[in-house]
Amino acid sequence: MNRSIEDTPIVFIGAGNLATNLAKALYHKGFRIVQVYSRTEESARTLAEQVEAEYTTDLQEISKEAQLYIVSLKDAAFVELLPQITEGKQNALLVHTAGSIPMSIWEGYAERYGVFYPMQTFSKQREVNFREIPFFIEAKRPEDVELLKAIAATLSGNVYEATSEQRKSLHLAAVFICNFTNHMYALAADLLEKYNLPFDVMLPLIDETARKVHELAPRDAQTGPAVRYDENVISNHLAMLADSPALQEIYKLMSKSIHEHHQL
Amino acid sequence: MNRSIEDTPIVFIGAGNLATNLAKALYHKGFRIVQVYSRTEESARTLAEQVEAEYTTDLQEISKEAQLYIVSLKDAAFVELLPQITEGKQNALLVHTAGSIPMSIWEGYAERYGVFYPMQTFSKQREVNFREIPFFIEAKRPEDVELLKAIAATLSGNVYEATSEQRKSLHLAAVFICNFTNHMYALAADLLEKYNLPFDVMLPLIDETARKVHELAPRDAQTGPAVRYDENVISNHLAMLADSPALQEIYKLMSKSIHEHHQL
Repeated sequence: MNRSIEDTPIVFIGAGNLATNLAKALYHKGFRIVQVYSRTEESARTLAEQVEAEYTTDLQEISKEAQLYIVSLKDAAFVELLPQITEGKQNALLVHTAGSIPMSIWEGYAERYGVFYPMQTFSKQREVNFREIPFFIEAKRPEDVELLKAIAATLSGNVYEATSEQRKSLHLAAVFICNFTNHMYALAADLLEKYNLPFDVMLPLIDETARKVHELAPRDAQTGPAVRYDENVISNHLAMLADSPALQEIYKLMSKSIHEHHQL
Repeated sequence: MNRSIEDTPIVFIGAGNLATNLAKALYHKGFRIVQVYSRTEESARTLAEQVEAEYTTDLQEISKEAQLYIVSLKDAAFVELLPQITEGKQNALLVHTAGSIPMSIWEGYAERYGVFYPMQTFSKQREVNFREIPFFIEAKRPEDVELLKAIAATLSGNVYEATSEQRKSLHLAAVFICNFTNHMYALAADLLEKYNLPFDVMLPLIDETARKVHELAPRDAQTGPAVRYDENVISNHLAMLADSPALQEIYKLMSKSIHEHHQL
């Protein structure tokens, strides 16, 4: 009998943003998600229903029959629960999905282990297209590297092997690229709300700023008053932010950093 | 004889990023650009050649026969040159393209004046699609508002009237949305270069971060360690940035701001 990779029974430990998106993507590719664990029943049930799986909120109740355990918990919870998560799963492959945690975390707890890191920003409310998401794979055993690469390749065209060291650097860069960038959008949204202007009018600028760096290096794509440190515009903007010292500080620090970057 | 709006003879004063993109877009729509002024001959000639116009580097040589003068200079240069720019052009419409400068700057120098502000990031090396760029129009005379709106409408589907006050707020928000965001890309590019990792691997994340706020409010789209202030990840990242105090400071300030934003 010909068994396909999609028959690998998978348990998801964690039902947050990443787990939700990844589990649904695998489910839609025909993978068998057998169980979902989450500390909170609503999260566990919601995801389980979407991928036709059982669910539990009790670590002791996690099935020991699966072949792949995908652990996607907050970093602190993962470290704390590691002994219970790994208990009795000696034959299975255990992976985590965190950019920030080295593979060595598994050492002494499991025999077959690795990392399955899709580098993307996930929210439960939004379904993402996995085709272009880069997956960074690492595993203790070469055959598990191949298995994880094969699973990732069913979802994405961009599957790479990466060391824990490389993944840590990618994750740090991703915080600047995504988290800090989105916060700039959020700060602008607050400003616009204050002035009774709609946020939507900014979308073409957001899109072009993103598209531009497909073609130009970010340094060459930089525009705005800080590049040549236009005193006049900058002091006007700082005056407009007089009632938000926190925003003023961000404005100053970013403008200084842009200017220094362009004097190099 | 039926004259169309495209027959309006236009002079560009300034040949920078914005002027270059705008002049080319108007030229491709059939407008007659009769002359380009720039302080530097190379900029003046390069743009003039692309739009089949004359060029000059001498303010005194600027044609007095045009009907529309589009002034797109650095803010400080514009203010300084205002008397020379307006001299002898009593019958023409004069507009500037700056988000940051109020329309009232023209008062006492011209009779017909206004602002023609396309809110976008422009670089000479990249041609942008004007269709979605929001244009913000202001003019002293109602008939000039209509003329400017009609010209903008040949390029874009998003043409609005805006007061100087509104434009100033939009421009400030745009600095966060575009300039600071692009600088985040640039800082990440430096980090990745240091670790010998390619910048291109970040493009799907950049694109999704931009796309996400078409659907979710930026606040709801926020992810990453700073939202719940994950001490462990954040202190690891700060340790990785130990050799760049400037980057550390930006990381700290942004993480603090994100966290505070999510405690509101």
